[in-house]
Amino acid sequence: MPISQISLRTGKPDAYRQAIFDGLYRALRDALDVPDDDQFMTITEHDAANFRYGNAFGIARSDDLVYIRIIVFDTRTAEQKKALFRRLAELLSERPGIRPEDLFVNVLDAPKENWSVGYGLAQFA
Amino acid sequence: MPISQISLRTGKPDAYRQAIFDGLYRALRDALDVPDDDQFMTITEHDAANFRYGNAFGIARSDDLVYIRIIVFDTRTAEQKKALFRRLAELLSERPGIRPEDLFVNVLDAPKENWSVGYGLAQFA
Amino acid sequence: MPISQISLRTGKPDAYRQAIFDGLYRALRDALDVPDDDQFMTITEHDAANFRYGNAFGIARSDDLVYIRIIVFDTRTAEQKKALFRRLAELLSERPGIRPEDLFVNVLDAPKENWSVGYGLAQFA
Repeated sequence: MPISQISLRTGKPDAYRQAIFDGLYRALRDALDVPDDDQFMTITEHDAANFRYGNAFGIARSDDLVYIRIIVFDTRTAEQKKALFRRLAELLSERPGIRPEDLFVNVLDAPKENWSVGYGLAQFA
Repeated sequence: MPISQISLRTGKPDAYRQAIFDGLYRALRDALDVPDDDQFMTITEHDAANFRYGNAFGIARSDDLVYIRIIVFDTRTAEQKKALFRRLAELLSERPGIRPEDLFVNVLDAPKENWSVGYGLAQFA
Repeated sequence: MPISQISLRTGKPDAYRQAIFDGLYRALRDALDVPDDDQFMTITEHDAANFRYGNAFGIARSDDLVYIRIIVFDTRTAEQKKALFRRLAELLSERPGIRPEDLFVNVLDAPKENWSVGYGLAQFA
């Protein structure tokens, strides 16, 4: 049920961005065991002037930095989130080739009553 | 006090997008009883390569899918959220004519101390 | 560790938008005591048809309204958030000159296990 927002600098080819979607979906399958075709994600591209990052926490980030914000059920455990971060770094470093330094992931938790995946129903409440 | 982010595919006319704003505002008035002119919303349009959705949970979605993320006070009840989803589907299917299958809504809860609606004050804390 | 999303109308010069980044970073330093170079922020610009605001709560907002959404550790106190809102309004009114009426800020809280700032690790869990 996760829904994800991805932000990166403008200019990467379509295939690069599709590989991010594919890797994120695969990581969600592997780490959170989401159902088949549970992929709900958008990418927003930003010009240099609209994209800021720092090197805090001793990590040398680059213009290839990718921000990923994922909203999940609040029933997910710390272990599941840890597995998700790890798997995401593995998969995205393989394809499209994102340096592990350039992956900034943030998870938000929402209770089951907070989701409507169609028809105006609260399917999981 | 809700603030909403709407994501959809690029290409819908202005009037279509205004109807989404109008319907969302009306649904918030009806379901959450928000004050007059409490409408704070943005739309982001995405090219095909930046917009991904699946058919999970047995729902046949289309390229007209609309993602709506709404942040509300954490005092809202499950009943209110249910009413919001239902009203939103009703109103947006009337105008601009969004299929109920194509409405994906997610709510996030934030305590009253987390809001500043102007002047740098925490008006509701 | 905060990550922020800023939304405003299209058309402000680069320097204006850089001043928003600078002011937000400075406010986070001052109010939340975040580490050096802990700046993770994006701006999304919206055409008029994709940007809606109202005058609820007796505040006369304008087209220069700026929405700022900030995700922080859930250990932040109400006092810290209050200080953040106040400092943000001060700094952004100095530079780039945003009216305090035109600042709409929303904070979301996420536990330490929800963050990966690089390498696929949950650095703060």
